[in-house]
Amino acid sequence: MSQFAGRDAVAPAVMVPDFPDLPEATVSRLPEYLRALHQLAQLGHDTVSSEALATAAGVKSAKVRKDLSQLGSYGTRGVGYDVDRLVQQIEQVLGLSQRRNVAVIGAGNLGHALAGYAGFPSRGFRISALVDVEPARVGERLYGIPITHLDDLAATVAAEKIAIGVIATPAGAAQQVADRLVGAGVKCILNFAPCVLSVPTDVDVRSVDLAIELQILSFHEHRRTRSALDGVTDGAVPHPVSHTPARKVV
Amino acid sequence: MSQFAGRDAVAPAVMVPDFPDLPEATVSRLPEYLRALHQLAQLGHDTVSSEALATAAGVKSAKVRKDLSQLGSYGTRGVGYDVDRLVQQIEQVLGLSQRRNVAVIGAGNLGHALAGYAGFPSRGFRISALVDVEPARVGERLYGIPITHLDDLAATVAAEKIAIGVIATPAGAAQQVADRLVGAGVKCILNFAPCVLSVPTDVDVRSVDLAIELQILSFHEHRRTRSALDGVTDGAVPHPVSHTPARKVV
Repeated sequence: MSQFAGRDAVAPAVMVPDFPDLPEATVSRLPEYLRALHQLAQLGHDTVSSEALATAAGVKSAKVRKDLSQLGSYGTRGVGYDVDRLVQQIEQVLGLSQRRNVAVIGAGNLGHALAGYAGFPSRGFRISALVDVEPARVGERLYGIPITHLDDLAATVAAEKIAIGVIATPAGAAQQVADRLVGAGVKCILNFAPCVLSVPTDVDVRSVDLAIELQILSFHEHRRTRSALDGVTDGAVPHPVSHTPARKVV
Repeated sequence: MSQFAGRDAVAPAVMVPDFPDLPEATVSRLPEYLRALHQLAQLGHDTVSSEALATAAGVKSAKVRKDLSQLGSYGTRGVGYDVDRLVQQIEQVLGLSQRRNVAVIGAGNLGHALAGYAGFPSRGFRISALVDVEPARVGERLYGIPITHLDDLAATVAAEKIAIGVIATPAGAAQQVADRLVGAGVKCILNFAPCVLSVPTDVDVRSVDLAIELQILSFHEHRRTRSALDGVTDGAVPHPVSHTPARKVV
């Protein structure tokens, strides 16, 4: 029932998956579209224009059309895209028709927050395991999820069919935890520890460093403050400075 | 003492800050370099090659050289970059020489995790305020930070000189909180709620949606699994598939 069956028929026989080899930037926007589409569906919309979808997802409409055309979805002029069909298609491409089990390593504050995050189950993920090294924590349950010891990681990964490992430990422990996840056969890692992980090329790592997000915001705040000050020292009236898009240097 | 005083001298008189208008992609990599440089300094390194900095920051060395050349840093052939000087320069560009105060709105699990995150103070940020609407929470202290009521947000922002607001509420409350932050004069927002915020053009928003990070990883896991299956159905031996870089579609 693949949407891309025709593609498979003409493609080389070996190792061609039933969805296209999408650019990374498109892949990273598909979850945004999916979130917006689910909201639209809840509000009773059957169809959506590329403009409305763009606004809901926070991108430009031309980008929406280009991204979706790469999935083979072109919409209907004057009508837009069928919401249900597009949801199914994006979920298929992202592999969300099958629920993925997640292990969170580190049952501290961040581990608590992740384990209790209500948004995961509805979006294709189940936190199936919490892992720690603190004797006081191991054996406890958090939101019904048992906390197991890091030394038992391989057994936990096998028993719970873990597809994704989330590292929520201090930076000093992160590489060792990554090595153990890789050793247990986990190929996808989401890293919250503020450090760069070294992993084999067939393992995917995404990193979320909270201080880095703040530092990027700090740049904009700094630029804005300086611009306003420059205005003052030049005798101009201080006023909020709206951003020009970052200049592209090629 | 600006590194870019020469630039200012030839630039138009009004509203030109003392650092260049960097591309957004470069800005987002500067904190990675900074983190790597701090680690190198701790290990006793005085200088660093672009290759070593690239490895530590998880990017390509050509990108490091290009990014840093935009700050006016070219390094010395055979020696590399001066670590201390580069740290100072990046901190100046990011506006980290001045510590920025952060308010976290939502004192639930994620708010707890953020308030207790040890990495912020050393990287230029201080969580100065926690804000909630739960009567049971308001008035409490968390890691020494008082929890104030959302209704008092404007007073809190003024009293604590808040530069950045972090939204750690459920999605349903996020837009209202963003409106209140904007109303209180906050121009930088880091949003953890899974929704797109609508803000004036002079306000910067960065979003971290944890489920979206997992969904992007899911795509890679899905592609890997499918590729291995295709290998099996074609009679080939299943083996891990190493990623080719995402194909660029123009």
